[in-house]
Amino acid sequence: MEESTEQMQPKKAFGWAARDSSGVLSPFTFSRRATGEKDVRFKVLYCGICHSDLHYIKNERDLGSSYPVVPGHEIVGVVTEVGSKVEKFKVGDKVGVGCFVGSCHSCDNCANNLENHCPKVINQFGSIYYDGTTTYGGYSDIMVTDEHFVVSIPDNLPLDGGAPLLCAGITVYSPLRYFGLDKPGMHVGVVGLGGLGHIAVKFAKAMGVKVTVISTSPNKKKEAIEHLGAHSFLVSCNQDELQAAMGTLDGIIDTVSASHPLLPLIGLLKTNGKLVLLGLLEKPLDIPVFSLLLGRKIVAGSASGGLKETQEMINFAAKHNIRADIEVIPIDYVNIAMERLSRGDVRYRFVIDIGNSLKSFT
Amino acid sequence: MEESTEQMQPKKAFGWAARDSSGVLSPFTFSRRATGEKDVRFKVLYCGICHSDLHYIKNERDLGSSYPVVPGHEIVGVVTEVGSKVEKFKVGDKVGVGCFVGSCHSCDNCANNLENHCPKVINQFGSIYYDGTTTYGGYSDIMVTDEHFVVSIPDNLPLDGGAPLLCAGITVYSPLRYFGLDKPGMHVGVVGLGGLGHIAVKFAKAMGVKVTVISTSPNKKKEAIEHLGAHSFLVSCNQDELQAAMGTLDGIIDTVSASHPLLPLIGLLKTNGKLVLLGLLEKPLDIPVFSLLLGRKIVAGSASGGLKETQEMINFAAKHNIRADIEVIPIDYVNIAMERLSRGDVRYRFVIDIGNSLKSFT
Repeated sequence: MEESTEQMQPKKAFGWAARDSSGVLSPFTFSRRATGEKDVRFKVLYCGICHSDLHYIKNERDLGSSYPVVPGHEIVGVVTEVGSKVEKFKVGDKVGVGCFVGSCHSCDNCANNLENHCPKVINQFGSIYYDGTTTYGGYSDIMVTDEHFVVSIPDNLPLDGGAPLLCAGITVYSPLRYFGLDKPGMHVGVVGLGGLGHIAVKFAKAMGVKVTVISTSPNKKKEAIEHLGAHSFLVSCNQDELQAAMGTLDGIIDTVSASHPLLPLIGLLKTNGKLVLLGLLEKPLDIPVFSLLLGRKIVAGSASGGLKETQEMINFAAKHNIRADIEVIPIDYVNIAMERLSRGDVRYRFVIDIGNSLKSFT
Repeated sequence: MEESTEQMQPKKAFGWAARDSSGVLSPFTFSRRATGEKDVRFKVLYCGICHSDLHYIKNERDLGSSYPVVPGHEIVGVVTEVGSKVEKFKVGDKVGVGCFVGSCHSCDNCANNLENHCPKVINQFGSIYYDGTTTYGGYSDIMVTDEHFVVSIPDNLPLDGGAPLLCAGITVYSPLRYFGLDKPGMHVGVVGLGGLGHIAVKFAKAMGVKVTVISTSPNKKKEAIEHLGAHSFLVSCNQDELQAAMGTLDGIIDTVSASHPLLPLIGLLKTNGKLVLLGLLEKPLDIPVFSLLLGRKIVAGSASGGLKETQEMINFAAKHNIRADIEVIPIDYVNIAMERLSRGDVRYRFVIDIGNSLKSFT
């Protein structure tokens, strides 16, 4: 078993890690801190596979990945221990953690419940925690997390289909709310029908919003309309379809992280329309300013959400029976899953059954 | 005297027109319609020179200019006749008209007081009016305008310094309001200290907003701070100054129409910051999406404003003693003024003294 730099912590832990930019994941023993007075310790049951896990383990998109890395930030499980000052959780509670495990709690962003934009935010994996140790994510057996960054999972939200909400869910829910695209009767476009996009359709519909899915793949039309209940579907390279839909959308949630032309999307917007980008596009934007001026339109970015809103999103999902469409896999399938994910071959999110498949070799 | 295609209307009119893309303006006789039942007829006293007048007479920025053109859309004067159904104005009233003289009154934009975004909006000059005639602007002796597009000029607003508010004023006032950059204590940047920028500083200050002027010209610092009362000044090519100001602005009103890098400006914004572009940039935007995602920032466009807001802006200006800093010129100086304007050699707006200098040769 490979030695970790993290064998000095008191609690043994086990997971799967990538050791270099090949991105290949393999068993990894390490350690986690003892349960601090404000910490929640929980057994991991499920962990979703986010596309950013894939970017990180392969050190893509200038992420500056550090190895070894245990990925995973869509994590749910059951509380096994709580610190003496923990107020919100008790042993046996079902909980989740997402992208972040620490922030400064004193900046304007933290004061406004936007820990995700705190300049000192600590990521679920690959960051340095307050005690100097590296953070390890949810492809592992146990987690120890400050309760501020833990959300409660209501009983009626399935843990497997609920796990992806911790990243994919909040990433699409937050901009729908913040940019005011959540009003009944509005008409919103969702670009890209993948892990984020399919959840965006579900949230928007539950908010009473009319949804048009926009995709490069005509063969996703049936799925979008019949299975997900989108109101309409546009093939993004079909000029006739786009022309007919010009000026009809109040906003667009664009989940695509590959480069794609934005001008046609801006054309779909009404006056005051909002194009919200969620993908880490590799190339810079290229937009004629005319298209923004003539209609007071905006192009915006959004990334994840704060903890207060994450709990609100989870509660909304539970109330409206929203969960991700998932393919549950055992941990030893994870490298194949990553390969399939890179090809977009999943409907729509892989979730690792950590509880039943992750077995320590020690 | 050159023949116009517009000699068939009942009311003789006189102005200065450009005949081709040389942009040279010269005396021009034409005609205007009789005062319709909802029309306001007024004697023009002053007309501001907007940079878009210059673009139009030279057929720049793909404007598709039609000739002859009588420019001018920052027009003030005194009412000489009103139609039988005019409700808001009477003979002797001081009035102004801006960029628009007609719209459909039935689309969503019109219903929301955004005539400026009506797809059938009729521009002050170079458009085709309902009667099939070409619209002619304010470098002329008389105007006849549907009262919906006429605003009242309060007694305490000087007509000469007030004229530029009809375009430059509403163009900067509207985005300050719409994008919520009008809250006391906020900190807003104004890029470019020209016709639009200097009025943006005045409006923002009157709203209780802290203003930083951002300019390529270090020699505008004294003017910005001592004369206009800006709180601070940044030279846009000074990396040290920019670095020190990173993350400090709630929003930026960018009035520059020449290509310039936007990434440094986005860097100046706080979380949720808004970069509002007002200039018709020739080249497309080029923005790394990262810069928008990491702070939920937006890049927006804004163009002019609706009539209701234009009246509100004029009333606000009158109340707070806001007017443009102007250089008043006679009409026969207009070609020299255009030349100086193209070099940015004016503080900050030329206004033509139509009432005293425009004399018909007929």
